[in-house]
Formats: sequence, C-alpha cells, structure tokens
Amino acid sequence: MKMMIINIFFILSLVSSISFASVQDFCVADPSGPQGPSGFSCKNPDQVTANDFAFSGLAKAGNTSNMIKAAVTTGFAPAFSGVNGLGISVVRLDLAAGGVVPLHIHRGASEVLIVIEGTIRGGFISSDNKVYLKTLQKGEVIVFPQGLLHFALNNGTGPALAFAALGSSNPGVQLVPSALFASDLPSELVEATTFLSREEIKRLKRVFGGSN
Amino acid sequence: MKMMIINIFFILSLVSSISFASVQDFCVADPSGPQGPSGFSCKNPDQVTANDFAFSGLAKAGNTSNMIKAAVTTGFAPAFSGVNGLGISVVRLDLAAGGVVPLHIHRGASEVLIVIEGTIRGGFISSDNKVYLKTLQKGEVIVFPQGLLHFALNNGTGPALAFAALGSSNPGVQLVPSALFASDLPSELVEATTFLSREEIKRLKRVFGGSN
Amino acid sequence: MKMMIINIFFILSLVSSISFASVQDFCVADPSGPQGPSGFSCKNPDQVTANDFAFSGLAKAGNTSNMIKAAVTTGFAPAFSGVNGLGISVVRLDLAAGGVVPLHIHRGASEVLIVIEGTIRGGFISSDNKVYLKTLQKGEVIVFPQGLLHFALNNGTGPALAFAALGSSNPGVQLVPSALFASDLPSELVEATTFLSREEIKRLKRVFGGSN
Amino acid sequence: MKMMIINIFFILSLVSSISFASVQDFCVADPSGPQGPSGFSCKNPDQVTANDFAFSGLAKAGNTSNMIKAAVTTGFAPAFSGVNGLGISVVRLDLAAGGVVPLHIHRGASEVLIVIEGTIRGGFISSDNKVYLKTLQKGEVIVFPQGLLHFALNNGTGPALAFAALGSSNPGVQLVPSALFASDLPSELVEATTFLSREEIKRLKRVFGGSN
Amino acid sequence: MKMMIINIFFILSLVSSISFASVQDFCVADPSGPQGPSGFSCKNPDQVTANDFAFSGLAKAGNTSNMIKAAVTTGFAPAFSGVNGLGISVVRLDLAAGGVVPLHIHRGASEVLIVIEGTIRGGFISSDNKVYLKTLQKGEVIVFPQGLLHFALNNGTGPALAFAALGSSNPGVQLVPSALFASDLPSELVEATTFLSREEIKRLKRVFGGSN
Amino acid sequence: MKMMIINIFFILSLVSSISFASVQDFCVADPSGPQGPSGFSCKNPDQVTANDFAFSGLAKAGNTSNMIKAAVTTGFAPAFSGVNGLGISVVRLDLAAGGVVPLHIHRGASEVLIVIEGTIRGGFISSDNKVYLKTLQKGEVIVFPQGLLHFALNNGTGPALAFAALGSSNPGVQLVPSALFASDLPSELVEATTFLSREEIKRLKRVFGGSN
Repeated sequence: MKMMIINIFFILSLVSSISFASVQDFCVADPSGPQGPSGFSCKNPDQVTANDFAFSGLAKAGNTSNMIKAAVTTGFAPAFSGVNGLGISVVRLDLAAGGVVPLHIHRGASEVLIVIEGTIRGGFISSDNKVYLKTLQKGEVIVFPQGLLHFALNNGTGPALAFAALGSSNPGVQLVPSALFASDLPSELVEATTFLSREEIKRLKRVFGGSN
Repeated sequence: MKMMIINIFFILSLVSSISFASVQDFCVADPSGPQGPSGFSCKNPDQVTANDFAFSGLAKAGNTSNMIKAAVTTGFAPAFSGVNGLGISVVRLDLAAGGVVPLHIHRGASEVLIVIEGTIRGGFISSDNKVYLKTLQKGEVIVFPQGLLHFALNNGTGPALAFAALGSSNPGVQLVPSALFASDLPSELVEATTFLSREEIKRLKRVFGGSN
Repeated sequence: MKMMIINIFFILSLVSSISFASVQDFCVADPSGPQGPSGFSCKNPDQVTANDFAFSGLAKAGNTSNMIKAAVTTGFAPAFSGVNGLGISVVRLDLAAGGVVPLHIHRGASEVLIVIEGTIRGGFISSDNKVYLKTLQKGEVIVFPQGLLHFALNNGTGPALAFAALGSSNPGVQLVPSALFASDLPSELVEATTFLSREEIKRLKRVFGGSN
Repeated sequence: MKMMIINIFFILSLVSSISFASVQDFCVADPSGPQGPSGFSCKNPDQVTANDFAFSGLAKAGNTSNMIKAAVTTGFAPAFSGVNGLGISVVRLDLAAGGVVPLHIHRGASEVLIVIEGTIRGGFISSDNKVYLKTLQKGEVIVFPQGLLHFALNNGTGPALAFAALGSSNPGVQLVPSALFASDLPSELVEATTFLSREEIKRLKRVFGGSN
Repeated sequence: MKMMIINIFFILSLVSSISFASVQDFCVADPSGPQGPSGFSCKNPDQVTANDFAFSGLAKAGNTSNMIKAAVTTGFAPAFSGVNGLGISVVRLDLAAGGVVPLHIHRGASEVLIVIEGTIRGGFISSDNKVYLKTLQKGEVIVFPQGLLHFALNNGTGPALAFAALGSSNPGVQLVPSALFASDLPSELVEATTFLSREEIKRLKRVFGGSN
Repeated sequence: MKMMIINIFFILSLVSSISFASVQDFCVADPSGPQGPSGFSCKNPDQVTANDFAFSGLAKAGNTSNMIKAAVTTGFAPAFSGVNGLGISVVRLDLAAGGVVPLHIHRGASEVLIVIEGTIRGGFISSDNKVYLKTLQKGEVIVFPQGLLHFALNNGTGPALAFAALGSSNPGVQLVPSALFASDLPSELVEATTFLSREEIKRLKRVFGGSN
C-alpha cells in the first residue's frame, strides 16, 4: 500500500502542477488590478477563500422609505467578487406596498425574477412596442430578455420581496427616469429626443436633481 | 395634430416593419421544431404571450419524502419556454432537515444559490482539489463556478428553501452518484476509473438501480 | 502536365468534398425555415448568389417629411439576408434640418455611426447617468456602447446623412417614446414607472397612437 | 417636495454606488496597461470623456498616389479607443480611378462595406472556391464573411469612397501580397506553398521589399 | 432498503424528466434538418449512440500520390457528426517526403498540429508580415492562430504524419492557390488584387483547372 | 520601378502602423502580468518568437510506473504560452497495459481524443445517466462533450498512446477520485453527497492522501 500511495502521488502531483501555473477555475475580482473588456483582474488564487464565493450583502432588507417605496440591492462584481467572469450575478428587490422599480434596462444580460413574498407585477416592452405583463405570486418567476425596457411593481397590499439573477457578472442597470432627469442632458435635448414637454422635463429635473 | 399622427406613423410603421420580419427580441422555445446547438427553435412571435415568459412550476414545494430528503425542481428550457436562448434559468431546492443535493456538475453554466429559508451548507471543489465550503443563512448567496463538482446540504434543524439561477437556458445537471450507480456503466469500469471497491459499487448499484 | 492536373484534382476534390456536406462559410437567411436563438435557418448554399451578400435597400434616401424629420432604414437579417449569423448589420439615417432619431436602445449590439453629410450631434447616457455628447462633422465617427440609451440630431442647417453599423445581424431597435406612448402599456403603469404626469402621458399617447 | 428629493436620492445614490465600483458600461482602451485576449485594459472611467467615443481619423481622404491607387485608413482600438471591447470598428477606403484594395483577410470579423461615392466592385471567394462578385453603386452595401479572401476595386471612371465596419474592435488585416512578398518568408517556401514560379516570386519580392 | 430504492427513484425520475425534454448535453449533427448559424440541427437523442461520437475516417492514411505529395483528411461536422456544436474538430495530414500543405486559412478557428511521425516545418504569417517558422519533430506541437495564412511541409527524408485539432466543429479550409487558380475569378481580377503577372496566373489556372 | 517601391511602401507602412499599436493577432501568455477572465496578459509582441507557438513538452512519453499505469501531460496556457486566448490546447496520454485515466471533467471545453498507438476504450456519461462507450484503434477518434464525466482505459495488451485536444487554452481537469479522496472535504460530507460508506471513504482517503 505504501508504494501505491507514492505512485498515486506521482499522478496527483502532475495534476496539481497543472493547476499551479494555469489560469484558475475562477477569477475572483481584484479591484486593485487593471480591468479589461471581460472583467476585473483575478485575485491571486492562493489568497482566495470560500468567503470570496459567498455574499451576505443581500441578507438584509433594503430601506423602502423613499419615493419609489422600493430598494434594489445588487450583488455584482466586484462587490460580490466571486462572480467575476462567471456570467451570473444576483439582485435583491424590496418593495413596500405600492413600491415600484422604475423603467430600466440591463445592457448586458437577461434577468429572471423570483417572487419570494407578496405579489409583483412585472412587465417588459419589445422592439415592436408590444407589452408583456404578468402578475406573479410567491414562487413564480418571470424572465426579462436582455436589453429591453422593463419594470416591476408591488401590486399587493403588503410588502413584497424578490430576488433576481442576471446572466452577467456586470449586467448594468440604466434607469430611464434617472438617465433623463438626474443627468445633465440639456432639457432641449430631452425634449427633442423624447417628445416630452419642456415643462414636464423641468418639473422632473427638479425632482431628480438633474441640471441643464 | 392629425398630420403629426399620420407622420409619426410613418416612422413607427418603419420600425414595426423591421420587427415583423426580423429575428425577434427573444426566442421562446418551440419544442416541436428542430433543435440546434444554440437551443430550441423559436415559437412564432405572433403566438407568444406574457405567459411564455412566466413560470409557475417552482411555486409549489417539492416532495422531500425521499432518500435525499430533498427535491430539485428545474425551470429550464423548454419547460420554462421563455428562457430559451437568453442565457439564464432557474431552480428551486427544497431540503428537509438533513436533506442533501448530492455531488453534481452543471456542464454549461455557473450557478448562484440564494437561501430563502433555513441554513444551507454549500461547497465546491476546484481542479486542484481545494474545498470551498460555506454555511449560509437566509438571504445569503453562494456562487458555484461552471463545471466544478458541488453540493448543498441543509445543516439546520428545520426545513430549508433556496432558489438558484444558472447562466444558461440549458445548463445540464449531472449527479455523480446517479452517473456511477444508476447507469449501466459496468462495475469493473466504475472500479477502474474511481478506485471504489467492487463491493461498494455493487451495493450502490442496488440502491440506485444501476445495471452491469 | 496532364498527370499533374489529374493529381491536383485529387486534392481539390478532397477539399471540395469537405465543403459540400459541411456547414457553409456563411448562413444566408432563409426566412421560410425555423429560427433559432442564433438566427435564421441557412439558405441552401447551391442557391446562394452574390446578390445575397449585397443590399441596395439603403441606396435611396428615406422620406424625412414626418414629425421627426428623419428616416431610419435598416439592413438587418432577413432583409439583408447575407448578414445572418455574421455579427454585423447596417443602417441608413436621413435627417432633414432639425431632424432627430429619438432616444433608443439596441439590445444586441454596439453601434458605430459615420457622418457622410451635414452635422450630427450624437449622445448617449451611461448607467451612472453621465452624458457623453459630441458634435460630428462629415467623415467623423461615434460609437454607442451596447444597450445604452442614445440619440442623434441634425444640428446643422441643411440635411444630414449618416450610415451606422451594428455588431449583430439582428441588434434590435427600441425607441423609448414609442415603447411608452405607442404601446398599450396602461397610462397608470407608465406614470408609476417613469414619474411622468398622467396628463403628459395621455397627451403623448394621443400623438403616438398608444392605447390604455 | 423636499422630502421626495431626499428620498429619491436614496435610490439614486444606491444606483450610482453600484456604478462606482463596477466594471463600466464600456472599456475605453488604455494602451499603457496590459493587454489580454479580450483587448486592451480599460481607461479609468473618471477620465473618460465624449472624445474617447468619437474618432476623426477617417474624416480626411487618404492619399491614393501610390501603386494601388488606394488608401485604407483604419479606426480600430486603440487608435479609436472607445471601440475597445465593443465588438465593432470602422475603416475608410479611398480609391482613385483604377484603385484596388488587394486580396486580404480579416481573421477576426465579418465586414460590411458601404459605397459613398463612385462604383466599387467587391468580391470574395469561399472555401469551395466559388467567387461572389458584385458591382456596387452609391449607397449599396456588400458583406464579406469572416476570414474569407476578399478585395475591392474602383471600376468606375472617377474616384470612389467607401466606409466599412467590422464586427470586432481588432479584426486584423492580412494582405496576401504583402504576406507573401513583403515578408522574409524564404522564396522556396513561397514557391512550395503557392505553386508560383521562383522568378515571379523574386520579381514581386523586389517590388514589395521582401527578403530571402 | 426497498423503500429507499423507491424514494431515490423519486429524485432520479425527477432528474431524468429534466433531461427528457431538455436540450441535450450534445447536438449530434442531423444533416437532413435545417442548418443555422451555430451549426446543424440535432439528431433525436433517442437515436444517438456511442458511434456518433467516434470517427474512424482518419484511421487510414490518405493517398499522397498527387502533386502536393500530401493528403488532408478532415473530421468536421457532419462527417464527424458528434462534434457539431462542441467547438472542436480534427484533421489528419499525411505528407510524403517533400509533401506540402499549401498556404491556407481557417476562417473559424485556431489549430494545434501534433507531429506523430517524421519532421514537419510549419509556419504562419501575421498581419504585420512577420513569419513564424518552426521545424517540429515527433511529439512536438505548433499552434496556428485563427484566420492567419499558414502552411506545413515535410522537410524530412521519409514520410510524415500529423494530426491537427481546430477549435470549431466547422472551421473551414481556404487554400490560397485553389482560391486563386481553381476558381473562376477572372484573371484580370487575380492580377489586379495580387500583383501576379497575367502569364503566371494563366499558367496556374491551367494547372489548377480554373476558368476565366 | 523605384517609384513603385516607394509607393507601395506607403500602403505597407500604413498597414504595419495599424499592427504596431493594435491588439495583436495573438496573445502569447505573459504569466508575470495580471490574469483576467479571458486568460493571461499578452507578452509584448516584439519579444514573441516562433518558439512561443511551439511546444515540445509532449514529445517525451510520460512515466506510467504508477498506480494508474498512466501519465497525462498537458499543453495548456501558460506552459504552452502561444495557445493563450486562442481557444485550443493539447494533451498527451500514455497508458501502459491496464492503464487508466480516471473519471474526470473538463469544465471549460469539449475534447477530441486521437489514438496513436494501441487500443483505448473511452466513455462518457450524459446528464440522464446514459453511457456512451467505444473501443478505439489506432487512428480512431472520440469526442467527449464539455463538462461531462468521462474516462479512458488501455484495454489492449501493450502500451497505448493518444493525443487529445480541447477547445480552450485553459479547459481545467477535475479528477473525481482526487476531488473526493485527495482533498480535505470532510468524510461525513463525502458520505452525505455521494452515498459511499464511511469505511470506503476512509480507505480511499488513506490511498489518495486526503484529510478529514
């Protein structure tokens, strides 16, 4: 048996020598290194621990005492460092009664939203202006195809909770009202490109804090 | 104003004519058509409704009265037809006290697992035989990198519930014990390729129903 | 020499026999076949001609006598059948003085816009609400990253012409004002998800022809 | 209203905090950082401006007073820094009467060529030695599938201008005559691998400046 | 134990029911179905056997009694039906003494070439006309980057054998001399786009069987 | 002729200036730079030579005097530095009579295995526990789809040799027995997730050197 142990170490050391110098099975984000088109630099694998693959940032309910009565908490790279390069990420949605996640787009991924508590109405609009709208109960799921305008509302009477996953470690979130009214895009350009009236734009720029 | 409506219809009809003949924003699975390397054929978009993007198959708890005290319910294409081609899918895990999702691999995607209820211990093993093991409470998340052996156990005292998402509409699930002991892989080949004893293999083939 | 010709035919016939049964170098769209997540079915290569790779649909100026004083003509699959599966497509923009391409998104590709005539102001907004705005003269180019809100205006005194290319044969075009005001998305949902006033929404639904 | 502004800042700051640490919506090339298989390192987003997404290097006609009576000016990364990682790039072709873009290949992308002025004959050859040849007028487009030999000639009587876009920020350009006759590939290897006569090779090596 | 068997069948049947309707782990080519941009349609998995994943077409030496003293035998889809959609394929090269695989390109994949017998000189040329040339002995390997001109010669005294693998199930093979001289590309276009003399072109068209 | 040479240098210098600053045609691994999700940093192209694209590490037979009577020698990045980013790599298998490559998975690529000498029995198991098993002679090939459990054995009477190629420069190798019995995964977790008996696990941990 001794000899067998020695022999098997021959093959094992071979395999571990492969792993030693090789690109790893994963690429935990090292935000201090350079970024590239495919994501963050990889943390030295010798310093990677199980904690890099776990994320507790979604365990606590977000504060919904705000205008939208909702909170969106994200588990993207590099906050959730283990997902870097793995093509997946996760989000928590807390919606008080009447809460809403405003119209938005993820440029880099499709999304599945899973209702954990309450009743959520989710919808998206396609390129040919068709509306796909669905009311979901606890345990039900909706998928929002990549890059399409979509939203979610709590249309129940109590609070709602959902988790969503996206098929990218860095899918992006572009909120349409923020893009238009919290930015410094000049009001005349907002008007020209959306057909909204100047008064409406000015009103919402005041609400959202946008300039120009 | 009448004229403006007519004029805008010019541009709108232009845009909708694009969509009409174009590949759609999505490709809802039509299981009756041919499959290709990238997934199922697309359902005629005229027959697609919001229901295609919703999935209620995960709303009900799975039956955990079995040997593993666990149930895995999947929302992959084509059961969840809307995810076809969108690079995302979803799974429900029900784990009674002591329940376990056996050692398995997803060949086609990384996975994020979100604990909804109870306490789950998740782990994976890397190519160089390091073990990454983490105990997760409600609201905590773990990521399993693509194609690595991993598992999950309920190590609390009550039932546990989790949802998982995977970065593919068809990620695959290969359970190691089923592959070895529920298949017709001849026992001598199982022995030769795993170093398990013939008696152990025979014992487990009887449990899992494998032949040869 | 005769013998050499015969011999070389040996190798040539070998090579052409490869091509005969193989997937082609291209996959010209056959809109009568099933679509899949990666695009249209391929036309029989024996029936493919040079005409399938050419497109004359952008040769004629679009009609800009409309509310936006602009015309967008697309060369996507299957209209431009040769681009199917090749990760590229093309668009023509005609903008009369004051013309505008409203705020929109391409879910599936980044875009380069090349100014051929006149002066065009192009802009996009990033996920963190920064505005990137540039005035371009003849021969200048701008790139719009995938899935971000962007627009273009003629801010010269005469007509403007541009061509744009996108990194997908089917990149999609979602016009924000059409999505909101030409669709049947209920006004209360538009209001809830964009913060626009009900009056403004109703006004624009009348202009764009949306219902509800 | 004050309170609403404060509240909305809660959600906005949440969103902007995501963007702060996250991989950006884009990855403007920083040529001073390391390159990887997916492209150049990303410039610090705080230092990115609208100028990074614009490119004026194609605005001026290339000098066609040369042997091929043609000029090819490229807008690839990192010269056009904004396209890095976005899967698109752009090229300008100036062709005097009789001008030609010699036989070449782009290893990394398909190409659409848009004729802006004059008449251009474009062609490519497939793996089974079929020739796809098309004469294009102003406004017409041709697509060259990835990695196939192709060329373009001005077959009109006056100058011609075209822009081309490629589905990669770094598609490569390999000119066959330069590869063979401007390189130091030994003449006997050129002969053996192309069947050209030694005299012809020597003659062209003198023209193109190749050695050996 | 009986009950355990029954129970485990609960989980197993669950898993197998996933597989039943799901896209398979593989997509064996069915050449009778439609092709798409990602490859051939998938054969019904019930009719797939181990034979679909094996290929004996490379077991026999190719006939090298021809002008190039070489034979290239390919294992691409659909001849090697199991590789469809799996991003890999394989080729056998037989080279008699003095044999040569002429200058060629694979549009869709990089290649590794493994020398099994004899001595092979392999080379490729980069976009900036640098030549990378290496003489390989038995057991040595060379990699040719995707879409670059390359070639291989037997520069030993006896026969040589090599196997090559490519990172696509359908990488394409475009032989430069065949493209130029076995096609019907008019001689004046060959001349204009390659700078070869008309006489040389005519001579080689006679050898290769090209017209025009 | 002088003038022609000067003129052609105009176009050539143009092309070479493109290449100078551009991402290269390849990305030879520089293990001293940061890694990212797509692989190693690129070596400065001025320092790249033909040697970077060649690999002699597989020329020598591996030592099969061990428990598995087999040796697996890998040509992955960065050992084979030229394959970095090119989506291909290569492996050598030496199998003495009775030798076996134990049950394993490549998380990142499909594999083609080419038998060079002897008789090899290769097999894989699919997600629905079907076994695909094939005995291969010299020159025959088998493909193992990505991420599925597979193995190979010498079932001839003499030694066997095979080369394998994988569709990734870093496909990973996870040996199931090593993952279970050479790691520090606690025995009770191995038991719970594989159904193996505690005694069998302890026995094999002693053989493979695993702890806990």
